[in-house]
Amino acid sequence: MRADVKQQLEAAVGRENMLTEREDMAPYLQEWRGHFTCEAAAVLRPGSTQEVAAVVRVCAQHGVGVVPQGGNTGLVGGAAAQTQDQVVVSLSRLRQVRSVDVENDSITVEAGCVLAQVQTAAEEASRLFPLSLAAEGSCQIGGNLATNAGGLNVLRYGNARDLCLGLEVVLADGSVWNGLGALRKDNSGFDLKQVFIGSEGALGIITAATLKLFPPLRQTETAFIALEDPKSAIRLLNELRRETGDNLIACELIPRFAIELVTRHVERCRDPFSSEHPWYLLIEAATPASGEWLGTAVKAVLQKALEEGLVSDAVLAESLQHAEDFWRIRENIPGAQVSEGASIKHDVSVMVSRIPELIEKAGAAVTEAAPGVRICAFGHVGDGNLHFNLSQPVDAEAKIFMARATELNQIVNDIVVGMGGSFSAEHGVGRLKTKELQKYKSEQAILSMQKIKQALDPQGIMNPGVILALEPV
Amino acid sequence: MRADVKQQLEAAVGRENMLTEREDMAPYLQEWRGHFTCEAAAVLRPGSTQEVAAVVRVCAQHGVGVVPQGGNTGLVGGAAAQTQDQVVVSLSRLRQVRSVDVENDSITVEAGCVLAQVQTAAEEASRLFPLSLAAEGSCQIGGNLATNAGGLNVLRYGNARDLCLGLEVVLADGSVWNGLGALRKDNSGFDLKQVFIGSEGALGIITAATLKLFPPLRQTETAFIALEDPKSAIRLLNELRRETGDNLIACELIPRFAIELVTRHVERCRDPFSSEHPWYLLIEAATPASGEWLGTAVKAVLQKALEEGLVSDAVLAESLQHAEDFWRIRENIPGAQVSEGASIKHDVSVMVSRIPELIEKAGAAVTEAAPGVRICAFGHVGDGNLHFNLSQPVDAEAKIFMARATELNQIVNDIVVGMGGSFSAEHGVGRLKTKELQKYKSEQAILSMQKIKQALDPQGIMNPGVILALEPV
Repeated sequence: MRADVKQQLEAAVGRENMLTEREDMAPYLQEWRGHFTCEAAAVLRPGSTQEVAAVVRVCAQHGVGVVPQGGNTGLVGGAAAQTQDQVVVSLSRLRQVRSVDVENDSITVEAGCVLAQVQTAAEEASRLFPLSLAAEGSCQIGGNLATNAGGLNVLRYGNARDLCLGLEVVLADGSVWNGLGALRKDNSGFDLKQVFIGSEGALGIITAATLKLFPPLRQTETAFIALEDPKSAIRLLNELRRETGDNLIACELIPRFAIELVTRHVERCRDPFSSEHPWYLLIEAATPASGEWLGTAVKAVLQKALEEGLVSDAVLAESLQHAEDFWRIRENIPGAQVSEGASIKHDVSVMVSRIPELIEKAGAAVTEAAPGVRICAFGHVGDGNLHFNLSQPVDAEAKIFMARATELNQIVNDIVVGMGGSFSAEHGVGRLKTKELQKYKSEQAILSMQKIKQALDPQGIMNPGVILALEPV
Repeated sequence: MRADVKQQLEAAVGRENMLTEREDMAPYLQEWRGHFTCEAAAVLRPGSTQEVAAVVRVCAQHGVGVVPQGGNTGLVGGAAAQTQDQVVVSLSRLRQVRSVDVENDSITVEAGCVLAQVQTAAEEASRLFPLSLAAEGSCQIGGNLATNAGGLNVLRYGNARDLCLGLEVVLADGSVWNGLGALRKDNSGFDLKQVFIGSEGALGIITAATLKLFPPLRQTETAFIALEDPKSAIRLLNELRRETGDNLIACELIPRFAIELVTRHVERCRDPFSSEHPWYLLIEAATPASGEWLGTAVKAVLQKALEEGLVSDAVLAESLQHAEDFWRIRENIPGAQVSEGASIKHDVSVMVSRIPELIEKAGAAVTEAAPGVRICAFGHVGDGNLHFNLSQPVDAEAKIFMARATELNQIVNDIVVGMGGSFSAEHGVGRLKTKELQKYKSEQAILSMQKIKQALDPQGIMNPGVILALEPV
């Protein structure tokens, strides 16, 4: 990068907030899953929306690629800068909670606020911000919105998109669009925020957002349920959803293999049952209403399901600690899978009704292709979203197994997309799945995406290579 | 229009589905509020998505303007064809319910399905489709999505946008984008459906949609509540929302003047109370859960509110008929206002917390500008959306009062937008409010909208003049 460009960038953020030494830049050039080696001319840490805008203006003037970065917890390389023609723009210093409006049930926060910080700010106002996911202690709300994050409570509260009322965005020319309305209804033209949410920084940089808040939860019921098969899980999900009054906020499918993994590799993880079962559901129902009817409703559903044989066994959490023990199992599955050896991962979705068919079809196909592969299909079954992960065969060599990743990915994705599903349910496309996008999306979809990209970022400087692959030079 | 173009259009839909006689076209060239005189070369009634695509291809080839039309119930002239260079494309013949998936809680319908038909199809599958608005007996789901319709149940279920899982759209070049996924989570690229929802036909024609279904409601509580002021209404709304467990599905503010209007002009509309009160709330709480806790919760809130003086009086509906009588009052306000004389209307929104301030400020301003004007500010206060309508002074002449519409609109909209609100909360921009859009939206917002329009409809044939005004020739 030319010295005068560097000078202009430094002027935009101040010397101490422009990092150029390899060592200083290292945390920003990590890509946690190891799919990408990162490189950048500099890491910029603007302290305000206006500084972000100033940075983008310099980049637009000189054709420098801009890689926005939040907590750098993404799983598809969306924040992984790739060349010396790019700069990382970290939003970490934009971390003010700008305002809370209790009567409007809304909060306005800057992009660099860590998700947990937003949750806490909501709690302090006696409200709930329901977005919740594994990385909540370090991911940032700007990144959550840029990637339309999902997580645990989508079933009741929706994805990040559904929780957003307004955005402030630095556009590709370095101008600032202030769309920070806190309105529940606004049909005054194209809803621009929808274009930026989920666009993974490829159209602009989200610098602040107004989010919906909800009444806090006062009754919570958590249960660990043993079942024979995924089909029973879907039937139970529907029963629970209706009988709790649509207050089922989480519904996680867990296979026997995952229980084996966490009990083997993770401290203080115990099988909730004394005998083995092929499948499990971890469910949580919760409501802001007072009273004790929710527990009654959950128990009635489970009692009936036990009598009818839909469910093999069930344990209701009797304390907060007990509920945490259940969640500890769920949360430790990915880590336990790492301890077990190499794994090939999929973040796929199908219609909820077709989850059993997906597990059967994809399971058969990968077993045929890679005998001995151990399937760990777990996750947000209430949203039709499975992390259909594959652990290496017991005696296989990790490297040899991982060499088959592309092939096994394709087998699973072909089945998923053939069933009307998505090859990326909640993690996004990033730089990792651009080939899948090219392969699985229709010509009309890709053309429309390209047109929107071209319209809003004609120079192609915003997060180059994300979602839409760069043309081969 | 040239004869050969007409011939090609006729070939696309068949002779009997191309109307060119003034008399035949009349129902499609009505604009119900009388703001627009309509004109078109033809009305086309394609019978399938492929026929819609064929029509648009002919129009694209010859630069013919395409005005999509659903139930033609819009209030801002979005379906009002304006010249002999345009054709109306009616979606009325695309009225199949393509599929219902009970376990996925989704339904796929064609654009021409009347909203009530979608509601009924959901009911037949023991599910709820919650979108509900005054025109539901004649408006079509394609139009609901194209305008991101709101209505009565937004508080609990969101706008039309929030209820949509997938779309099928005929693009401006006449190709078909099939985005009919029924997925709850899908982050595989820009979410294109979000671009088309609420774009009022200016980017493409929605031909089918996959929609979310919900468990049916089993407990419903309806109450008519008398209050001293809007501030109390907002406090009560928050109490009810929390204590019902976020199961408040409707919350309508009604001023005394509206009660006078409906009892004067509408049969079988009676004041629920024996004495007069300045303000009223019509609320409905409902849940799919069984039991009787919801009524207990609503009564407890109202009892406490009465004791604390937050509420002056309250009546709970004791039967379905009783509840219908309450809703009859609300639904007849617009009609009663017509019977009372001329009225100038606003469909505005602000933050819920600022509704009292809006009513005070805008009320004072219009009263100063037009002494004697009678304010009928009613509507979806739970969404911050008021129909801030003005009835003519008692002795004024209708024509003279209506001549001040632009002036009074501007007074109200200036205040609304000054408070961070929207000049069009749920009705859209259409051809009626393009000047307001130019005036009130930021330069960055308008430029971004223009870029998206240019990208997806470079010839400008899709619903010309809607949202973005045509350049003066």
